[in-house]
Amino acid sequence: MRFCPYAHRVHLVLDAKKIPYHAIYINLCDKPEWFSLVSSSTKVPAVELVNEPGNPVLIESLIICDYLDEKYPEVPLYPKDLLKKAQEKIFIERFGQFINAFYYLVLHDNPEQLVDTDHYDGLVVYEEELKRRGTKFFGGDSPGMLDYMMWPWCERFDSLKYTFEQKFELSPKRFPTLIKWRDFMIQDRAVKCFYLDGQTHAKYINSRRSGQADYNMLYNEAKRVKLG
Amino acid sequence: MRFCPYAHRVHLVLDAKKIPYHAIYINLCDKPEWFSLVSSSTKVPAVELVNEPGNPVLIESLIICDYLDEKYPEVPLYPKDLLKKAQEKIFIERFGQFINAFYYLVLHDNPEQLVDTDHYDGLVVYEEELKRRGTKFFGGDSPGMLDYMMWPWCERFDSLKYTFEQKFELSPKRFPTLIKWRDFMIQDRAVKCFYLDGQTHAKYINSRRSGQADYNMLYNEAKRVKLG
Repeated sequence: MRFCPYAHRVHLVLDAKKIPYHAIYINLCDKPEWFSLVSSSTKVPAVELVNEPGNPVLIESLIICDYLDEKYPEVPLYPKDLLKKAQEKIFIERFGQFINAFYYLVLHDNPEQLVDTDHYDGLVVYEEELKRRGTKFFGGDSPGMLDYMMWPWCERFDSLKYTFEQKFELSPKRFPTLIKWRDFMIQDRAVKCFYLDGQTHAKYINSRRSGQADYNMLYNEAKRVKLG
Repeated sequence: MRFCPYAHRVHLVLDAKKIPYHAIYINLCDKPEWFSLVSSSTKVPAVELVNEPGNPVLIESLIICDYLDEKYPEVPLYPKDLLKKAQEKIFIERFGQFINAFYYLVLHDNPEQLVDTDHYDGLVVYEEELKRRGTKFFGGDSPGMLDYMMWPWCERFDSLKYTFEQKFELSPKRFPTLIKWRDFMIQDRAVKCFYLDGQTHAKYINSRRSGQADYNMLYNEAKRVKLG
């Protein structure tokens, strides 16, 4: 599913490590028959490991990304220190609070929910932590696992101003460090590989909010351009 | 919290690896003041690493257990093969469906929910998988991470027959392999270290269902015995 933020996580790790892969995007409302043969859980993302005997399939974005990080250690995404690694995983886990708030917002209609509640305040933890670290990225000079695991929702955050009438952006006063981080992230090679701008995300999110999620939006648009 | 199944997971790993530790059980409804100083999230389990500079605290049962497994590799709980390790983590993640069903049951009042739905069928996956492996434990000759991460709820499963009027046990016809597994698990040294029988779990669960969770049940009972 081209717009799935969990699948996005896996793309980021694959691209950061330059692992060759072939992506197949599926329509979640009309899953192809072969998909149930590949993934018993019918969840996305699902990664089929074609170099392993029996072509086993992994699911769950964090499990897939941790596997890729251990299997392809050339560009390590976690700190070497085991304690720091565990602390990074806690930050990744904790980001789930913000993800839940984000979905609540996308499926309902009250941006105040995200702005005013503890969930948006949840971002303050990351603002403070990055300021404390004093590095460009959470991972240091280059993005690490925490950066990439947060990014799909941060990229989509920019779409909110197109989805809701009122202007809805990260406050430069409250989030100066995260705003600078976002600008650095957009320049990262792996992030660029899979990047979509806020307007495109908004278009998809609006189709989902209307109850008719347009999973093939990019494909159909490309076809129209080609035919046009 | 003595009855917390997530904390139970951490006890099992600590005991399996014979890592020395000091446990403090807290009352979740009346948390001691010092706890917020130790754990910013005020969640249990929280593990304070007193040998590390600054006494850092880790939270989240799976993150703690994975950290302990990497930090104390003497009794490895995951398969060495990275793919098998990832597959083991997927089985651990998937067990969450059963955990959700279990809590639904404990907090509501309809055992059919657990018996008849897909969630109980969720256990079939583990029955089939263990039968396929043909080993005593999921981990082989001794319990591995999957065995220990499932165990807290399996130990508590035995309490259901005391909590609900109707007899409520694992069907020997549907779950012959898991029933044998349970008998093996109860003989495991680490499991024995923290084991409580079904009647004791039921007593706690009933106090929780009544709205007055008796977190200090064992402490108070021991005191009564001592005074008596």
